[in-house]
Amino acid sequence: MSFDRLIENIVKTQNPSVVGLDPKLEYVPMYIREKKYKKYGKTFKAAAKAILEFNKGIIDEIHDICPAIKPQAAYYEMYGFEGVKTLYKTIQYAKEKGMFVITDGKRNDIGATMEAYAAAHLGVTDIDGEKAEAFGADALTVNGYLGTDGIDPLLKQCEAFDKGIFVLAKTSNKSSGELQDRKIDGKAVYAVMGDMCEKWGSSVMGKYGYSAVGAVVGATYPEQLAEMRAALPHTLFLVPGYGAQGGGAEGVAKGFDENGLGAIVNSSRAVMCAYKKEENCDEHDYAKAARREVIRMKEDIISYLPKITLP
Amino acid sequence: MSFDRLIENIVKTQNPSVVGLDPKLEYVPMYIREKKYKKYGKTFKAAAKAILEFNKGIIDEIHDICPAIKPQAAYYEMYGFEGVKTLYKTIQYAKEKGMFVITDGKRNDIGATMEAYAAAHLGVTDIDGEKAEAFGADALTVNGYLGTDGIDPLLKQCEAFDKGIFVLAKTSNKSSGELQDRKIDGKAVYAVMGDMCEKWGSSVMGKYGYSAVGAVVGATYPEQLAEMRAALPHTLFLVPGYGAQGGGAEGVAKGFDENGLGAIVNSSRAVMCAYKKEENCDEHDYAKAARREVIRMKEDIISYLPKITLP
Repeated sequence: MSFDRLIENIVKTQNPSVVGLDPKLEYVPMYIREKKYKKYGKTFKAAAKAILEFNKGIIDEIHDICPAIKPQAAYYEMYGFEGVKTLYKTIQYAKEKGMFVITDGKRNDIGATMEAYAAAHLGVTDIDGEKAEAFGADALTVNGYLGTDGIDPLLKQCEAFDKGIFVLAKTSNKSSGELQDRKIDGKAVYAVMGDMCEKWGSSVMGKYGYSAVGAVVGATYPEQLAEMRAALPHTLFLVPGYGAQGGGAEGVAKGFDENGLGAIVNSSRAVMCAYKKEENCDEHDYAKAARREVIRMKEDIISYLPKITLP
Repeated sequence: MSFDRLIENIVKTQNPSVVGLDPKLEYVPMYIREKKYKKYGKTFKAAAKAILEFNKGIIDEIHDICPAIKPQAAYYEMYGFEGVKTLYKTIQYAKEKGMFVITDGKRNDIGATMEAYAAAHLGVTDIDGEKAEAFGADALTVNGYLGTDGIDPLLKQCEAFDKGIFVLAKTSNKSSGELQDRKIDGKAVYAVMGDMCEKWGSSVMGKYGYSAVGAVVGATYPEQLAEMRAALPHTLFLVPGYGAQGGGAEGVAKGFDENGLGAIVNSSRAVMCAYKKEENCDEHDYAKAARREVIRMKEDIISYLPKITLP
């Protein structure tokens, strides 16, 4: 259980970053879109198939240099059940290629309902005795607002199927402070949530010092990253907000430990749309451009870190 | 915009309750399951088709006496994209029958990603100029932990498409207090969230005094229901936890205003599984049993309320 597999992938690739696959249709090169529209019309099916081809192209190019992908559920749900089918197929494809898959769903509920989410995204579903994997990610982002009742069902799946969760603590957006920075007995809400992550994680510890319960802490708040790293020694951080949202590599370095571990930094648009930013890049080379951006980002981040090694 | 259509449905049916369609497969009568297994094997497709038939049967029997349904996304996601297709079809079927549909997804994110969720569940998706409805519910439950950045994109869809949202404030579960009851400057987190609901709602007011921004407040906490009703005059409450979780009708009455409006009470399992509880009820009569439970629940709740009238 826990994030051991993710940590091993990070060490193997010497890359503590994850590519967010948040494929807005406009990010997909037109030649792929046109091909699908010709066959299926401008439908959800066409959009979903275009996105799947786009995702597979990127995964093919980066799986050897990048430890993980993070598909964002919203961008699949917006294309209806056809889009959700592409989410499933993207997850399965990336896993076949050896990548660790974090579904960014920020799911939250209680009791039997949270069990259903846990089965859907991390575990297996029982159909009168037949067991099958609905989505089968390696980890899921979740929202801890409902407390332990919303987390316990996930921990069971983490134990049973060697999976992990990332709980929102301090998110990267501008208004995150409206609630998350408010003080409870002198302690910020995000820090209170962080304490709960340490507590929840204590029963699902991995062999490299990190539990199966991680936390989301935004790259846009480096001071809080440093504070949380010091306060939460067993909690792995998923760090969004690098690049597009303004978080820099020097800042995100504060989320790491002395082995260059303890955090994984997300980049979505900069990778998916690298071909649009590069000069004279043909859209057919979108995946190669993505690979170049993954390498650039990795070099940028690790230049501020000690060599990444298992403890 | 706002919850005007829901309020009108409530007045028409004189029923301030909503049926939660959280169809665990074991709730579906065996004759329906067997029929689908025979055709499709024990697969996600069979499960999804069984659930759809089950849902339609209930909707057929209750749509004239119940203002709304609330499908819980988790119970569809656990059957993969086939299950998510059944969620879509259930929403569309209930809307055709005139019911107000609240998708219980507790979605949350920021900026462009929240826009994607808003388009997916409340608005329309643009496929290079063709617009289509991915799920098309009338309202969505959401989690406000990320602040205004997570809510603004929803308000745009509420305005454009006459939809609403319910933000989690005080949830019905036992551990909800771990965060929600903690005090910020002497005020509980759930009350701080409630204040944000009033603020967010101020730009999307309806004609009956309630905005498009509602709040989730559990039936299991009647004192907080009363406190929140007094503090949040423009915020409609979605009240889970009646029945199975222990909330009684006398308690939930505290969530209502002097016109018998201001709240809608959810019941899921007691309605879906009414046929299992009734003595000598054939499983073929599951939908008729559901209707009887809807009537029983309605009578129970309105016995503590003033006559339901538009202000």
